[in-house]
Amino acid sequence: MKMKPKMKPKMKPKITERLRADADVIWKKIVEHPFVNELCAGDLPAKKFRFYVLQDYNYLMAMIRVLSILASKAPEFLIGEILEIAHMESTTELDAYEKLLNELDLSLNDAMNVKRMEASSAYANFLIATSSLKSFSEGLTAVLPCFWTYTEIAEAQRAKLKKNVNKIYVEWGSTYLSNDYVSLVDKIKSIVDRSCEQSSYKDLKTTFVTASKYELLFWDGAYKGPTK
Amino acid sequence: MKMKPKMKPKMKPKITERLRADADVIWKKIVEHPFVNELCAGDLPAKKFRFYVLQDYNYLMAMIRVLSILASKAPEFLIGEILEIAHMESTTELDAYEKLLNELDLSLNDAMNVKRMEASSAYANFLIATSSLKSFSEGLTAVLPCFWTYTEIAEAQRAKLKKNVNKIYVEWGSTYLSNDYVSLVDKIKSIVDRSCEQSSYKDLKTTFVTASKYELLFWDGAYKGPTK
Amino acid sequence: MKMKPKMKPKMKPKITERLRADADVIWKKIVEHPFVNELCAGDLPAKKFRFYVLQDYNYLMAMIRVLSILASKAPEFLIGEILEIAHMESTTELDAYEKLLNELDLSLNDAMNVKRMEASSAYANFLIATSSLKSFSEGLTAVLPCFWTYTEIAEAQRAKLKKNVNKIYVEWGSTYLSNDYVSLVDKIKSIVDRSCEQSSYKDLKTTFVTASKYELLFWDGAYKGPTK
Amino acid sequence: MKMKPKMKPKMKPKITERLRADADVIWKKIVEHPFVNELCAGDLPAKKFRFYVLQDYNYLMAMIRVLSILASKAPEFLIGEILEIAHMESTTELDAYEKLLNELDLSLNDAMNVKRMEASSAYANFLIATSSLKSFSEGLTAVLPCFWTYTEIAEAQRAKLKKNVNKIYVEWGSTYLSNDYVSLVDKIKSIVDRSCEQSSYKDLKTTFVTASKYELLFWDGAYKGPTK
Repeated sequence: MKMKPKMKPKMKPKITERLRADADVIWKKIVEHPFVNELCAGDLPAKKFRFYVLQDYNYLMAMIRVLSILASKAPEFLIGEILEIAHMESTTELDAYEKLLNELDLSLNDAMNVKRMEASSAYANFLIATSSLKSFSEGLTAVLPCFWTYTEIAEAQRAKLKKNVNKIYVEWGSTYLSNDYVSLVDKIKSIVDRSCEQSSYKDLKTTFVTASKYELLFWDGAYKGPTK
Repeated sequence: MKMKPKMKPKMKPKITERLRADADVIWKKIVEHPFVNELCAGDLPAKKFRFYVLQDYNYLMAMIRVLSILASKAPEFLIGEILEIAHMESTTELDAYEKLLNELDLSLNDAMNVKRMEASSAYANFLIATSSLKSFSEGLTAVLPCFWTYTEIAEAQRAKLKKNVNKIYVEWGSTYLSNDYVSLVDKIKSIVDRSCEQSSYKDLKTTFVTASKYELLFWDGAYKGPTK
Repeated sequence: MKMKPKMKPKMKPKITERLRADADVIWKKIVEHPFVNELCAGDLPAKKFRFYVLQDYNYLMAMIRVLSILASKAPEFLIGEILEIAHMESTTELDAYEKLLNELDLSLNDAMNVKRMEASSAYANFLIATSSLKSFSEGLTAVLPCFWTYTEIAEAQRAKLKKNVNKIYVEWGSTYLSNDYVSLVDKIKSIVDRSCEQSSYKDLKTTFVTASKYELLFWDGAYKGPTK
Repeated sequence: MKMKPKMKPKMKPKITERLRADADVIWKKIVEHPFVNELCAGDLPAKKFRFYVLQDYNYLMAMIRVLSILASKAPEFLIGEILEIAHMESTTELDAYEKLLNELDLSLNDAMNVKRMEASSAYANFLIATSSLKSFSEGLTAVLPCFWTYTEIAEAQRAKLKKNVNKIYVEWGSTYLSNDYVSLVDKIKSIVDRSCEQSSYKDLKTTFVTASKYELLFWDGAYKGPTK
């Protein structure tokens, strides 16, 4: 007797899965961006990498402000988790960042005084504006691509990273493959899934896609390097 | 020959010193408040202490939100310090709070579901409103009496605390005499002194005095206990 | 043949109707508050009315700030409507307020310099905190009782107002029976109904009930008059 | 006898004068921007003008939000003035804008649904971020170039506008020469001068120069027209 195949129960996709799917075109461009490709293959000019690292400072500072705004608006049971992330960015992450600067013979002071590229300012102001005027859920959705795209990049580039002999580039890439980093991304995704149920999906999508575009523009800007 | 006495150079008083002096009448009432006196002498009815501790929960949560708002607005070189305090409140401080609840046979859940006294809501909303609409400096000034009055209370009540045999009350009081706590207060005072120089002293004073009044109202409410 | 009675289609009640029902106990106390009863009957001591009017200034200023915050967060199609109300409060309403002060031989300057009663500060800070940290919908719900209770008061007191011979008191009461005022309240209610559909009803209810309690406390404070 | 020449008393320059001088290089580029030159001479391609006008919608909406944020934070004596400007933008200005759209055979709906150019989003988010996180004075300074550059443009292009036969372009330009518009700009400048005295000039300058750069980028984007 032929058995009827067991039907897999159709699960409603998670919000983060829908968002990811709806930004797929942009994410494909991010994951295979020339900057990322060359970095992971080991042949990115040092000058471009230094430019990118220096540009990251002001963005990181803005991200800490944004996570603080989100902590202030979070539902009570989430305040601690958001603050934990904000604090981690302003301690562990900032320390790692300074270490990377030093390996490149740069200082935190160099980073503070660098001329900001427009792609970084625009992205930072988009995040501050969104978290200030919109709901906690929409603000957190804005912040998600910044964390999440890096795991996808590192996954997609894993093979290249293995053959890469540039110690600093390999170190950079392996951060985003570490358990700690992957757990962090999973945590943020899970908070978004838990807290966005009452939000309009259309608004969340616009926010997520816009943030993803700014990620792409950041890579474009980094690859192009300093203007003038 | 009579020597002219050496003149002590007249130092401009620090802003925190001026604020403290201008709130002196209120602070005297706080430091010798019946609730505080009885607590430190050991004869405060357990019921009143439990009420006070339960009321503290919502205030603590609001304080964490307020410190997050302040971190988001802080001048760049202070973001990390403010976030450190916010994080400490939502980890170390919240753990200590839960431990105290447990010693009183209470749970965090009891605290979450307690009916808030008006003095606590009013104080919390004052802090949120001030940090949201006013400058970083004014917001931080609003937060100062909450931290600082406790060191003055513990100092003023040190003798009583020594003779006190109520273990829980003594533990409560000695927290605010610890080096850690005193350093925390010194740190916040020093941030206020460094960051308020451009602010109007009149505005800072109004904010500091109002916050001090709310501290006093909180003790009044705690001493009165639950209404109805 | 007996006809089955036509069933009235059961309409889902509007959010504002549910909120009103859930705050009914408090609203009954507001509508028949001694201050309101005596005012509408004409036998409220002039001293108490003057105190109430003077206290209104700081609350009105806070309300204008709150409506501005809400305009900044409003969905695009509602920005204009919210700003219209904010502007009306800071022009027409402030002019009417100054006229009333003058009829009582008081000036705007007197109102600016009056010692604020705690019930007014607490209410104002609750509104600022709610509109700053919560969603547009929740912030607008916080603001609703302030506008809406006055039409209910004026309706409930209509008979008394007719016999009242105190010109100033009658003028005060008839404002809230005017078509302009009733339309304004209907407009705000309709915006709440349109914009709160995605919000958690439980949160909206807490906000609406809390705001209603502060309305009651304001009347209590006004009736009690100046302390000390 | 030779008279000593009377010394003109040296006046401390106003803050707005210093800001204007410190942004001079950028303002020169704005005032003689190809878009502006061709518009005022009458030979700007209609397609470019339509693109510019359509792009203005989202910026105008953001500006209304920004002015609302500023009203919520304004010192008490300025709330009314700021709200007056916000209200004017959302009524008179929006009406004039819709009229202009209609003259170009466009509707408000077209403007709402247009794909935003990055220069407009970036500028809008910069203004929202600045007014949200910084002081009232710094927020108002951010807003100033948007209003003020238009009077300088219209002044500089006055001769060209006189010979211009394109009715719509002339109408556009003459708006910014009208007494109403010039008074509005003078009013905002005077509020900045009155309210920025306690602010750090360095911060104000950074804000003013950044806003001026975004004005320039907006014209660049408008001249370039739609991408792809």
